Amino acid sequence: MLTSDLHQTAAILVIGNEVLSGRTREANAYFAAQKLFEKGCKLSEIAIVPDIKGDIIDTLHRLRHSYDAVITSGGIGPTHDDITMDAIAESFDVQLLEHQDTIIKLHEYYGDAINSGRRRMARLPETAKPIICEKSFMPGAHIGNVYVLAGVPEIFASQLETFLNHFGGRPYIRHEIEVSLPESLFAEALESIQAHFPDVEIGSYPRLCGKKACGKICLSAQDESLLYQAKERVNIMLNDIHSASQD
Amino acid sequence: MLTSDLHQTAAILVIGNEVLSGRTREANAYFAAQKLFEKGCKLSEIAIVPDIKGDIIDTLHRLRHSYDAVITSGGIGPTHDDITMDAIAESFDVQLLEHQDTIIKLHEYYGDAINSGRRRMARLPETAKPIICEKSFMPGAHIGNVYVLAGVPEIFASQLETFLNHFGGRPYIRHEIEVSLPESLFAEALESIQAHFPDVEIGSYPRLCGKKACGKICLSAQDESLLYQAKERVNIMLNDIHSASQD
Repeated sequence: MLTSDLHQTAAILVIGNEVLSGRTREANAYFAAQKLFEKGCKLSEIAIVPDIKGDIIDTLHRLRHSYDAVITSGGIGPTHDDITMDAIAESFDVQLLEHQDTIIKLHEYYGDAINSGRRRMARLPETAKPIICEKSFMPGAHIGNVYVLAGVPEIFASQLETFLNHFGGRPYIRHEIEVSLPESLFAEALESIQAHFPDVEIGSYPRLCGKKACGKICLSAQDESLLYQAKERVNIMLNDIHSASQD
Repeated sequence: MLTSDLHQTAAILVIGNEVLSGRTREANAYFAAQKLFEKGCKLSEIAIVPDIKGDIIDTLHRLRHSYDAVITSGGIGPTHDDITMDAIAESFDVQLLEHQDTIIKLHEYYGDAINSGRRRMARLPETAKPIICEKSFMPGAHIGNVYVLAGVPEIFASQLETFLNHFGGRPYIRHEIEVSLPESLFAEALESIQAHFPDVEIGSYPRLCGKKACGKICLSAQDESLLYQAKERVNIMLNDIHSASQD
């Protein structure tokens, strides 16, 4: 792909009752978020919706018209709760068709005994390209600006790797500074540094550490030189506050 | 609250660049999802958006008009990236005012030296009720059908406990069955059991276990008797398939 065609912004759509019911801690969006950050693609939203076709279609519609690309996770297996491919096809107003290369592979592996569940998993939306990875026979799908991946984390990760080169531009870099001051003591000074460096994203993340204040200030940017300048300013600011508080 | 006033459906809105950049694995929605499941409240959506006021307002608007209640996480500290309270106030078209009880507590603790950061954290949307927990001086906010909580997990959890009794009805129960068959072998039979038990949510979650198929079938319901009936049917079905495959 030409650099100018790379997806600069993305959303992730997780389909899964198991996440909404608290059974499963979400892992795929977390993994993809790290990969997109490294590639320099801005992940702008994560949405987690139930295995309900209307909800998937509505959310997909909103996301794919808001961002350069959407990555979906889950709901492409053979069971009744796997309805993502149906929703994608309906969303793009195309049919689901059996992917013939996958059917051939299934015949080679299972002989003639391809059951209806396996046939179901071999369906792709018409006009979609298959996403083939090392971990599974069964394809994900790439249609328009949407990438449809499996929910099993190892398969999701393996499928994602096959098209990560469609994403990004200039990679983001992150630096973190451990802080042992209450946020309220440096909030104003940090805001003025942020105002000086609009292209560096500066966040402050406190933790509870007993009675002492602690946390991290995180800086990320695509421009390494700017990142170092901003970090230097934050370090000086923190030293000044430490010194003043010990006077 | 009267049982009829309890929130039966909910969404969670996580505000946090740290999640979207892959720095932090989301923990608060996961915790709340488990609590809502136990209470019998249906969690219908999780949305994760950046620290951008327009994005927070748009998403909050959509969620609070779609579900009985919305719980937000993050963005209520003293630093420049903490803009959730501003977004909430704008969304409800009210002002942010200092919460006087909190200001009094801050004076008692810090003497006269309340800095601007601490004053910023003491602000609540007009007409909001404070959410006070054991882990922090600083209040969350309850306004309309929205509950605004901190992002620090221990504080989020502590704040959530104070109003969980606003949620739910009949608690959900979950049972899981370990399965060592490929999903495709039982998909049709499981679908027909699901059709017989529309009030039991049945999901199938495969894992990769080397060359062997494995996974879990999860059943959840509010009616324990129905849950046991459905589980019994699934167990019989799995035994039948195991027996047949050993013939």
